[in-house]
Amino acid sequence: MTYELYYWPEIQGRGEYVRLALEEAGAAYVDVARGRRGSAAMMKMMDARKGTPPFAPPFLKAGKLVIGQTANILLYLGSRHGLAPKTEAGRLWVHQLQLTITDFVVEIHDTHHPLGPSLYYEDQKAPAKKRTADFWDERVPKYLGYFERLLVGSGATYVTGRRPTYVDLSLFQIVEGLRYAFPKRMKAFEKDVPGLVGLHDRIAARPNIKAYLASERRIPFNEQGIFRRYRELDR
Amino acid sequence: MTYELYYWPEIQGRGEYVRLALEEAGAAYVDVARGRRGSAAMMKMMDARKGTPPFAPPFLKAGKLVIGQTANILLYLGSRHGLAPKTEAGRLWVHQLQLTITDFVVEIHDTHHPLGPSLYYEDQKAPAKKRTADFWDERVPKYLGYFERLLVGSGATYVTGRRPTYVDLSLFQIVEGLRYAFPKRMKAFEKDVPGLVGLHDRIAARPNIKAYLASERRIPFNEQGIFRRYRELDR
Repeated sequence: MTYELYYWPEIQGRGEYVRLALEEAGAAYVDVARGRRGSAAMMKMMDARKGTPPFAPPFLKAGKLVIGQTANILLYLGSRHGLAPKTEAGRLWVHQLQLTITDFVVEIHDTHHPLGPSLYYEDQKAPAKKRTADFWDERVPKYLGYFERLLVGSGATYVTGRRPTYVDLSLFQIVEGLRYAFPKRMKAFEKDVPGLVGLHDRIAARPNIKAYLASERRIPFNEQGIFRRYRELDR
Repeated sequence: MTYELYYWPEIQGRGEYVRLALEEAGAAYVDVARGRRGSAAMMKMMDARKGTPPFAPPFLKAGKLVIGQTANILLYLGSRHGLAPKTEAGRLWVHQLQLTITDFVVEIHDTHHPLGPSLYYEDQKAPAKKRTADFWDERVPKYLGYFERLLVGSGATYVTGRRPTYVDLSLFQIVEGLRYAFPKRMKAFEKDVPGLVGLHDRIAARPNIKAYLASERRIPFNEQGIFRRYRELDR
């Protein structure tokens, strides 16, 4: 079965967590909206009056199933492609961690859009500065400190053991994204999370991920996505 | 088995979606942090260096399992207490909807805390006004319009059919909370979502929910929770 991924074609965004899982798994998939008429097909599926129309991208078509919400897609893919533990307890734990990453991603986005997603960044620069200061003072240490503790506590190669899960792939993306968006702040912060930095490097070196990152399938970071580089928000 | 729910004892907050599911199911549970030394026990579990320490409340202890993240807890409870469909497709769909509600709950919280959770509301009143205006202009119609379309499209008593799921319980709470926090705005808006208002009423009339809402187990809304009534943010 070839999966169909539907996501905004110009950005990594939330779709990237799904792309990384599909790539690590070596799964066959089409990134539909990046193809001709793909965006129109995506909008049409969201506008459906019957069935299970998703609220927003990303969503994944897997045979007859249409699955929305990033963490939900990963829950589905994880158990099918060895990217999550096999036990119920293990699956719930990894999903719980992904949902915590989901919360963090919202807060990353809100650094440049504290007044909401409808206004332009240019119209909320001053509040964005305040929110970003709090984000780095309080939130980054809290979230990344949590994952660092889990890594150190388990003493394992990956968060839940010797095999990577979709959570490890997502944490790679978090480190990569924070380095892009906040190069100065992140550089200063990384000494506090050596475990996470090591995890990032191990994921980046995995053959399928390495090939993906070097390919045109990986969309470069830019200022339309979640991670945006605005000099005034960095130090 | 008696479940142990761990959540901040003074507020409904995110714990309320779990409480409503436990109550509708008639499940035996202890709201641990509302008891003596309960808050200390809660903090201790989050500080654990081993096992699966949750990032934040709410979390549920079910035998040996400790499950965090509201939607994840509901995923677990749903399949055990008839509050979710039995098929995998149905379970993924209901979970997807819950995750969309989760996103909406963050945006509700951000109306009064656009500059982040660390600052007091009093220190972010002006940005809160702007965010709230955008919330009611753009986000409420988008989110609640989506659920209204699903209800109308299915023509069923509840979102996924004749039986209520945890999503219906959560939508009840959303309507109830918006009525509390924004009485004027919500009153004007409700004419656009008659299906949701009807759903709210059907949930409120269910015997277990009715008994719960009349009991002391239901914490009243207040200005420490997600839904806060600040006159200056209402019309």
